[in-house]
Amino acid sequence: MNTSPDILSEITALCASGDAEALRAYCLPLHAADLAAALAEAPPADAATVLGFLDLDSSAEILAHLSPEDQQIISAQLSPEGLARIISRMDADDRVDLMRNLPEERSEKILHLLAQAEREDIRKLGSYREGTAGALMTSDYATLTPELTAQAAINKLRLEAPDKETIYYAYVIDAQRRLLGLVSLKDLILARPDARIENFMHRDLITAKVDDDQEEVARTMAKYDLLAIPVTNGNDALAGIVTFDDAHDVAEEEATEDMHRMGALSHTPPGLGSVNMLEASTWLIVQKRIPWLLVLVFMNIFSGAGIAYFEDTIEAVVALVFFLPLLIDSGGNAGSQSATLMIRALATGRAHLKDWFALLGKEVGVAIILGVGMAVAVSVIGVFRAGPEVAAVVAMTMVCTVLFGSLVGMSLPFILSKFKLDPATASAPLVTSIADIGGVLIYFSIATWFLRDIIVAAA
Amino acid sequence: MNTSPDILSEITALCASGDAEALRAYCLPLHAADLAAALAEAPPADAATVLGFLDLDSSAEILAHLSPEDQQIISAQLSPEGLARIISRMDADDRVDLMRNLPEERSEKILHLLAQAEREDIRKLGSYREGTAGALMTSDYATLTPELTAQAAINKLRLEAPDKETIYYAYVIDAQRRLLGLVSLKDLILARPDARIENFMHRDLITAKVDDDQEEVARTMAKYDLLAIPVTNGNDALAGIVTFDDAHDVAEEEATEDMHRMGALSHTPPGLGSVNMLEASTWLIVQKRIPWLLVLVFMNIFSGAGIAYFEDTIEAVVALVFFLPLLIDSGGNAGSQSATLMIRALATGRAHLKDWFALLGKEVGVAIILGVGMAVAVSVIGVFRAGPEVAAVVAMTMVCTVLFGSLVGMSLPFILSKFKLDPATASAPLVTSIADIGGVLIYFSIATWFLRDIIVAAA
Repeated sequence: MNTSPDILSEITALCASGDAEALRAYCLPLHAADLAAALAEAPPADAATVLGFLDLDSSAEILAHLSPEDQQIISAQLSPEGLARIISRMDADDRVDLMRNLPEERSEKILHLLAQAEREDIRKLGSYREGTAGALMTSDYATLTPELTAQAAINKLRLEAPDKETIYYAYVIDAQRRLLGLVSLKDLILARPDARIENFMHRDLITAKVDDDQEEVARTMAKYDLLAIPVTNGNDALAGIVTFDDAHDVAEEEATEDMHRMGALSHTPPGLGSVNMLEASTWLIVQKRIPWLLVLVFMNIFSGAGIAYFEDTIEAVVALVFFLPLLIDSGGNAGSQSATLMIRALATGRAHLKDWFALLGKEVGVAIILGVGMAVAVSVIGVFRAGPEVAAVVAMTMVCTVLFGSLVGMSLPFILSKFKLDPATASAPLVTSIADIGGVLIYFSIATWFLRDIIVAAA
Repeated sequence: MNTSPDILSEITALCASGDAEALRAYCLPLHAADLAAALAEAPPADAATVLGFLDLDSSAEILAHLSPEDQQIISAQLSPEGLARIISRMDADDRVDLMRNLPEERSEKILHLLAQAEREDIRKLGSYREGTAGALMTSDYATLTPELTAQAAINKLRLEAPDKETIYYAYVIDAQRRLLGLVSLKDLILARPDARIENFMHRDLITAKVDDDQEEVARTMAKYDLLAIPVTNGNDALAGIVTFDDAHDVAEEEATEDMHRMGALSHTPPGLGSVNMLEASTWLIVQKRIPWLLVLVFMNIFSGAGIAYFEDTIEAVVALVFFLPLLIDSGGNAGSQSATLMIRALATGRAHLKDWFALLGKEVGVAIILGVGMAVAVSVIGVFRAGPEVAAVVAMTMVCTVLFGSLVGMSLPFILSKFKLDPATASAPLVTSIADIGGVLIYFSIATWFLRDIIVAAA
């Protein structure tokens, strides 16, 4: 298989030579995704030239595979007429995504260069809010009416097929476009040619609504292994379909968003896709990172205040400070683990809100085992470094902070979920900060009580 | 749509009544995924009874949708003969997954109850290592020979369709089963009935090899929006196909694994799927969590040693300890952010090893901006809490620790990747621990130098 750099250099050379025929011949066996990857690395003017040389269907496919940022950059190099010609060949969902990202003036100009049917389709699909099934769906799908015979249906699909994104599922609708059932191409092939499709179509369909959250739609499609899911609007009429490839992209985007949130990164609005590291501006990255960093700074003021409260204890037994990072970190690490497990379990449907109490019990058991294990490990060091009394304080604190951290880490996703917030906001940094505050209070409280004689003597 | 608890109670009632006919009628319109979810909550004996009452194809579908753990529990309730009957109706990839998880004795017994063709198919598919394309693929696919006409091909598929998992793509092979091309059902419908498929089949196929990593196969399928990908063996012969639904499951599994790793959780071996929180034993969870917790404890010994080295400074200016958690946490938080961004970018192909140097420059810029912003925020508190000198130390340290943490967080995934390790091992806890050690050294070094007069006076 050709690699991106190979394709890029070959295309650049052919562009420079101006030989359109050779360029077309070279690009023909290549997949649009690979060509798009190569053009994304090329100077935008060259990329636009290539699109100009290729046939419209190939250009449309390539444009669809580009990232939103690259689409903007490269399409800006094309004339409005040239862009409109390519857009009219794109799949319905891909072209509305592209149009959405164009500057308003340009997008209006392009719209007026398109055929009316295309213009209306783009307006309609573009009217749905980002992040919903409506914004994800395509209007390229095949419909049939229930009285058709299998043979008539196949003939109809044969006529419509080149324009439709998928004819493997054909949707059976009534006069008001309400969804009656579904037949797959396989069903049509297998049926007797004269059988009416209303007699063998699948009813009890799994559907989505235009306002459904895209993450939920993707999860539903994964659960039922659907190639495509029909989407109905407020009138229960069929409005579009979401295909498996778009569902997969949504799942990947949502997983990235979760991971970012768990790393205390702020949410980039949907539609911007995932921030491409090399392309994102410094300002955008700072915007994504500074909010949580500042929030956590102010939370950590409390841990400082806690330490200040125990100033006498620290002055009396300075050795306590040696173990401070170790102890509060352990609580935070245990909490991060718990939070990670819970967040992912909630996201993939393996745990539900109602499970919280049962899981809490298990968490306490696990945390105590972990805490005791770590306490044994550190008390060995503690005895050597600072004597048996401090070692005892450290060991007791270890069990408590690990328990506290784990409970915080485990509960926070549920609490967030209960208040309709994203459980992934229970990021490792957030859990760690809460565990730090608790850890400081626990540590120095235990120390102040257990070593009270030493502290009084030192005062 | 019925919910799981509704289905569960209905099924339990019908089971108790012993009315097989009513049970079958109730289950008929329900999707196998929903029935499986309900049966997973039922007592295993009831679940097995239900499977016994339903027709074999429905039972096979339901069994395929259960988690590996539930499959084991429920299938253990069935007689070997009953289980073998269901297994023979399952899709090839699903049944080999189930067989793999059975105790060896039972699996051998079942194998001998199956037809020879099925037995050999299971042995062959089961011979591939977990986590590879071979272990993921199914042998249920349609093949054609190149000289067939479109009409003859459709007739052949019509005969084979009920047994094949997907006939939407049919693979064209030669006498040695080498892959020549692909025709989709859509192509066959659209072609002239007497056209030979070798004249219109797609060549230049995207393929996988049996030993390819499953994550890579899933990424390839997502990149090219493939419904299925053909898998070839060492002889370049077609050995199976991986379908889009299995690729989606792999992508989800791999994302979960990455998230767990980033939360400092140890890796569960592939094939066990994701640990189901409610079902996983306490021992298994402890196994998953204790390794990294202990490693991080021992790493944090170094931060303690660092603090011990600066004991005099701390005794002289105890107020420094107030800001310790805040400063080292900020470094760790910034580092977690960087690590998160890099790990996900590497995993989704948005960044590559070669980009490290360019990204490093950008990271320095971003980190300095973040550090200065946070330094300004904390120095206000610092002045009020502990005076201008300490505030100055805190501010300087903040910029340095944020820079240090960010560089560590950003570089670690690349370094791990360079040594062929999983970049996701650069977990938030690991990055935080490294940042802590660095932060302690930076903080107290700056303090010791900047406040040297105060320290000397106090000694």
